Amino acid sequence: MTSFDHTKYRPFQPVAIENRTWPDQEITKAPIWSSVDLRDGNQALVEPMTVEQKKQFFALLVDVGFKEIEVGFPAASQLDFDFVRWLIEENQVPDDVYIQVLTQARPELIERTYESLKGAKKAIVHVYNSTSKTQREQVFRLGKDGIKEIAVKGAQCVKEHAAKHPETEWVFQYSPESFTGTETDFAVEVVDAVADVWQPTPDNKIIINLPATVEVATPNRFADQIEYFCRQVKQRDSMIISLHTHNDRGCGVAAAELGLMAGADRIEGTLLGNGERTGNMDVVTMAMNMYSQGIDPELALGDMDRIISVVQACTLLQVHPRHPYAGELVFTAFSGSHQDAIKKCLANQTDDKPWDVAYLPIDPRDVGRSYQEVIRVNSQSGKGGVAYTLEQEYGLALPRWLQVEFSPIVQQFAEQDGGVVNAESMKALFESRFMTGNKPYQLGKYDHAKNDVDTVHAELNSESGSVSITGTGNGALSAFSEALGKHFGMRVDIIQYQEHALTVGSDSQAIAYVQANIDGDRFNGVAIDSDIVSASVQALMATVNQKVLENTSANVA
Amino acid sequence: MTSFDHTKYRPFQPVAIENRTWPDQEITKAPIWSSVDLRDGNQALVEPMTVEQKKQFFALLVDVGFKEIEVGFPAASQLDFDFVRWLIEENQVPDDVYIQVLTQARPELIERTYESLKGAKKAIVHVYNSTSKTQREQVFRLGKDGIKEIAVKGAQCVKEHAAKHPETEWVFQYSPESFTGTETDFAVEVVDAVADVWQPTPDNKIIINLPATVEVATPNRFADQIEYFCRQVKQRDSMIISLHTHNDRGCGVAAAELGLMAGADRIEGTLLGNGERTGNMDVVTMAMNMYSQGIDPELALGDMDRIISVVQACTLLQVHPRHPYAGELVFTAFSGSHQDAIKKCLANQTDDKPWDVAYLPIDPRDVGRSYQEVIRVNSQSGKGGVAYTLEQEYGLALPRWLQVEFSPIVQQFAEQDGGVVNAESMKALFESRFMTGNKPYQLGKYDHAKNDVDTVHAELNSESGSVSITGTGNGALSAFSEALGKHFGMRVDIIQYQEHALTVGSDSQAIAYVQANIDGDRFNGVAIDSDIVSASVQALMATVNQKVLENTSANVA
Repeated sequence: MTSFDHTKYRPFQPVAIENRTWPDQEITKAPIWSSVDLRDGNQALVEPMTVEQKKQFFALLVDVGFKEIEVGFPAASQLDFDFVRWLIEENQVPDDVYIQVLTQARPELIERTYESLKGAKKAIVHVYNSTSKTQREQVFRLGKDGIKEIAVKGAQCVKEHAAKHPETEWVFQYSPESFTGTETDFAVEVVDAVADVWQPTPDNKIIINLPATVEVATPNRFADQIEYFCRQVKQRDSMIISLHTHNDRGCGVAAAELGLMAGADRIEGTLLGNGERTGNMDVVTMAMNMYSQGIDPELALGDMDRIISVVQACTLLQVHPRHPYAGELVFTAFSGSHQDAIKKCLANQTDDKPWDVAYLPIDPRDVGRSYQEVIRVNSQSGKGGVAYTLEQEYGLALPRWLQVEFSPIVQQFAEQDGGVVNAESMKALFESRFMTGNKPYQLGKYDHAKNDVDTVHAELNSESGSVSITGTGNGALSAFSEALGKHFGMRVDIIQYQEHALTVGSDSQAIAYVQANIDGDRFNGVAIDSDIVSASVQALMATVNQKVLENTSANVA
Repeated sequence: MTSFDHTKYRPFQPVAIENRTWPDQEITKAPIWSSVDLRDGNQALVEPMTVEQKKQFFALLVDVGFKEIEVGFPAASQLDFDFVRWLIEENQVPDDVYIQVLTQARPELIERTYESLKGAKKAIVHVYNSTSKTQREQVFRLGKDGIKEIAVKGAQCVKEHAAKHPETEWVFQYSPESFTGTETDFAVEVVDAVADVWQPTPDNKIIINLPATVEVATPNRFADQIEYFCRQVKQRDSMIISLHTHNDRGCGVAAAELGLMAGADRIEGTLLGNGERTGNMDVVTMAMNMYSQGIDPELALGDMDRIISVVQACTLLQVHPRHPYAGELVFTAFSGSHQDAIKKCLANQTDDKPWDVAYLPIDPRDVGRSYQEVIRVNSQSGKGGVAYTLEQEYGLALPRWLQVEFSPIVQQFAEQDGGVVNAESMKALFESRFMTGNKPYQLGKYDHAKNDVDTVHAELNSESGSVSITGTGNGALSAFSEALGKHFGMRVDIIQYQEHALTVGSDSQAIAYVQANIDGDRFNGVAIDSDIVSASVQALMATVNQKVLENTSANVA
C-alpha cells in the first residue's frame, strides 16, 4: 500500500538574490539551439535507437536547422562510437554544424572520446561531473575540493587532447551536472576553476551548460539561479551560458524561458520532449512559443507531421493528443461558443493583418494543419455522434484522428441537407470520402520481401494501362509508400495507422485506416479486405488517389 | 503546403507593474482546489462522457478530496442538467462539497441553471462573459461599456434567483473569460462592477476567477497580471481570487504556481490535465509539486493507478509515459550512472531522514509505484535487450509497460547467475513470473452476457474444490475483475491491457498481457489461448494468483 506523506520532503532552498532583473526582460530573439535527442533522448528509451533510426533522426535535425547536435556518449557505448565515426567518415555533417559528444570528466573516457572524433571538422566536447550536495556526499563521497578537482582535471585533459588535433575546430563545454541541487556559489567556483584551465576569450568562448538535471523548484527559482550565476561567474563575457532543463515538475519549458530572460544564450532540449523520466525541455514548444510572438525561432518547424513521424518512429513514444502545437486535438474546437467565436474571427482575418483569432494562438496552416470544428451529430443522447453511430451500425471503430477529420464532413452535409444525418448517409459519406471505390488507380498483384529492409514490387492499374512500381522501407506499408511516392513524384509520409477486425456484417474481414501526409497535406484512406496487409495497402492507395485527383482538378482549373 | 512565417504574429503586451513582489513569495500551503473535469474537461472530448462515466468520475473527485467540483453547464446541455438533478435528488453530494455549475451571463440561461440546482445544499453559480479585445471587437461587436453591462446584468440576475432559494448555501463566482487577452485595467473595472452588485464581505466572499483561457505569454507575465489585478481591485479582502490556466504554451502549471505566489487563493484544473486544446492545468502535477516540497497538498493522490484508470476510462485519452508523477517511465532509470547514484542514495535512505535520492524527486512508493532499473541484456548489439530477444525468438511482442517490469527480473537473474541470459532462460523466467502455470486458482467454465452492462458467471477451481463467482462491469474483463475482487475481498483495477496474435510457433493463438492494481500493488499476468477472451481472462487470473500467493506467504511468515 502507498504511504502518502508529505512530511518526509524538504523544501528547495532558493538562492538569495537581490534586485533581480529577469522579470522585466523579454525574449526577443532565438537562443542558440542544441539538440540532445540522440544522446539524452536516446538513453532514456526502453529500446534505444538502431543505427538506421539515428541516421534518420540526424537528417531531421539538420533539416530543421540545428547547428549544434549532441550525437552520443561515444566513450560509454560502442554503438555511439560507431555512429560518430560514420558521421565523420561518410562526411554526413554539413559544414556549418557542430557535432557534440558527452563524456564524464575521466581521463580514459576523454581519450576514447577524442578517438571517436578524429577528423571531425567542428566538434563540441562536452565534459561533466556532478556537483550537487546529494551527489557529493552520497555518491562520490568527496568534499567540495575533491569534486572541483575532478572538473579541473577533466578540463585539463580535454584541452591537452584538443591540442593534438588542430585540424578540428574545437569548442569546449562544461556542465556542473545536477546544477539545480548545487549551492550556486559552489557551481560558480567550479566553473571559474574550469575557465581558468580553458582560458576562453570573448572571441573564443566556452559553453557553460547549467542543467536542471532534476527539476526541483518553481521555474522562477531556476531563473534566479541563472541570473545569480551570470553575475558571479568571473569570465561571463567569454562564456556561452547554456540551459538544459528537465520536466519533473511539468515546467521544463517555463524554466528554460525564464532562464533565457535571466541571461542564458543557449538552450539544450529535444524535439517533442523525449528524455530521462519526464523528459527534456521540448524544443518544439519553446520555439513555437517564440514564433507565436512574432520572433523568428531560427528552426524550420512547418512540417510538423514529418517531425512527429520521425520522432515517433525512432522513440516508439506517441505524441500526446494535447501536446502543444503538435497534438492531434490542439487545433480542434468542440464547444459551440468557441466555434462561433473562431468563425467570426476567421471571417475578419486577412493576410495583411496580424493573426488575431480567438482560441487559436497560431494559424494551424503554419504547421500543416487545419482548424477542426467538431460537432456531435446527436449530442443530446450522450453517446451520440459520428463515431458512435458508425461503430454501432457498421462495426467501424474509427480511430480518434479519423473521427476528428470526418466530423466536419458530416457537419457540412448536415448543414446543406438541413436535417439530421442518418446512419446510412453517414456511411455513404464515409465511403465516398475515404475508400478507394472507382478512383483512378488500383493496386494489382504485388510481392513483398522482408529482409533487412522490406521491398515491394507492385502492379499499378489505371485506365491507361498497367505499370510496375517498386520501393523499400521499414515494413511493407513504408515500402509501398516509397514506391507510390517515387512513381507519382510525391513525398508520402504515413502519419497514422490503425486496423481492426470487422465484427459486424462480415466474418474474417479487416479494416485499415491510414493517414498520410502527401507533399505537405494530409489525406485519409480506408479499405476493407480479408487480408490485413492488403487492406492497409489499399487504404494507402486511397490517400494517393485523393492527392492525384486533387492535382488533376487543380491543373484543369 | 505550409507557410511558416513568424512575422504575422504580434508579441503579448505585458501589464506595467512596478515593484512586483511575487518573485520573492513561496508557496507554503495548498490553494482551494476546484475540479473542472466534468465541465471543461468533458466539453473537449471527441466522445463526451456518458452518465455512467460522469458518476464514476464524480466519485473519484470526492474521494481525492475536492470540496468544489464543477459538474457541468446545465443550461447548455440536457445531459449536464440531468446529471446535476441526479446528484441532488439521489443525495450524491457530501455535505462538505460544493457543486459548481457554469453559465453564460444571459438571463434565460441563468434561470435554467437555477432550475437545475433546486434543492442543492451548497452550490457555486459560476457566471462568465468574455472581455478580451479580440472577443469584444470581433465576436460581440460591443464596446467596453456593452461588455461590462453583460457582466452586471448577469450578476444581478444571479443574485435575484439566489434570493428566491434561501434553502441553498449559494456562492457566486464570476469569470472575465479570456482574461489574459483583456487589458488588466478593464478586467478590474468589470469585476468591480460585478462586486458592486453582489456586495461581498470578508465573511461572505465571492469567487473571482481569472482564466488564461488561452495561454498567450510566459508564465511570469501572467503572475504580473494577477498581482496587478489583486492590487487594483476594490474589494480584494471580500474575494477569493481563483486561477484557471490552459496549456497552449506548455506552461499551464508554471502559470498557476506563479499566479498563486502573486496572490491567488484558488486553482481550477483537471486531473492529469484534460481540457480544451492543449488541456487545462493539471491538478495532479501542481499538487504533487507541493507535496515534493513538504507541503500538504490537501488532496489524496496516493492511489495514482486508480486516478489514471478512471481518467483514461472516462476521457479515452492515454496518460503519456513521461507525464510527471504518473507516467509509466517517470520512475525508471536506464543509464548506468543514474542507476549507480540511485542505488547508493537508497542504501543511505532511512525512514527518519528526509527523502534525498538523486534523480528521484519523490519516493515512487508514495504513489504506489516502485523504482525501476532497466537494463539492456545485450545493449552493444543495438537491438539487444529483453524485448527484442523475446520477440525474435518467440514472437512475444511485450508492451512497453511489461518490458519495464520484466527487465529488472532478468537483471537480477543475470547477477545471480553471473553471466549472459540466453533466450531460453529468459522465456522460462517470463513464464514462471507472469503466466498462471500451476498457481492456486484456475478458471473453469464461464458465461458472459452483454447487455447494458456485461455480466459474468464463472467457476473458480482450486485444490479445495470449486466455487461460483459472479460480477458485472463495462466489458468482460472488467466484469471478471469485479467477480474476482468480490470473491477474494480485494480491489482489482485493470491498469494496462494488450493482446496480439502469436506469429511464431503456433497458428491461431492469441497472447494477452494484463496489468492490474490489486489493493494498491501492481501485478502483471500473461496468458495464451486460442480464444482471445479466454486469454485475457486467464491473464487477469494470473495477477490475482500472484496476489493470493503473496498474501499466503505473508500470513505464514
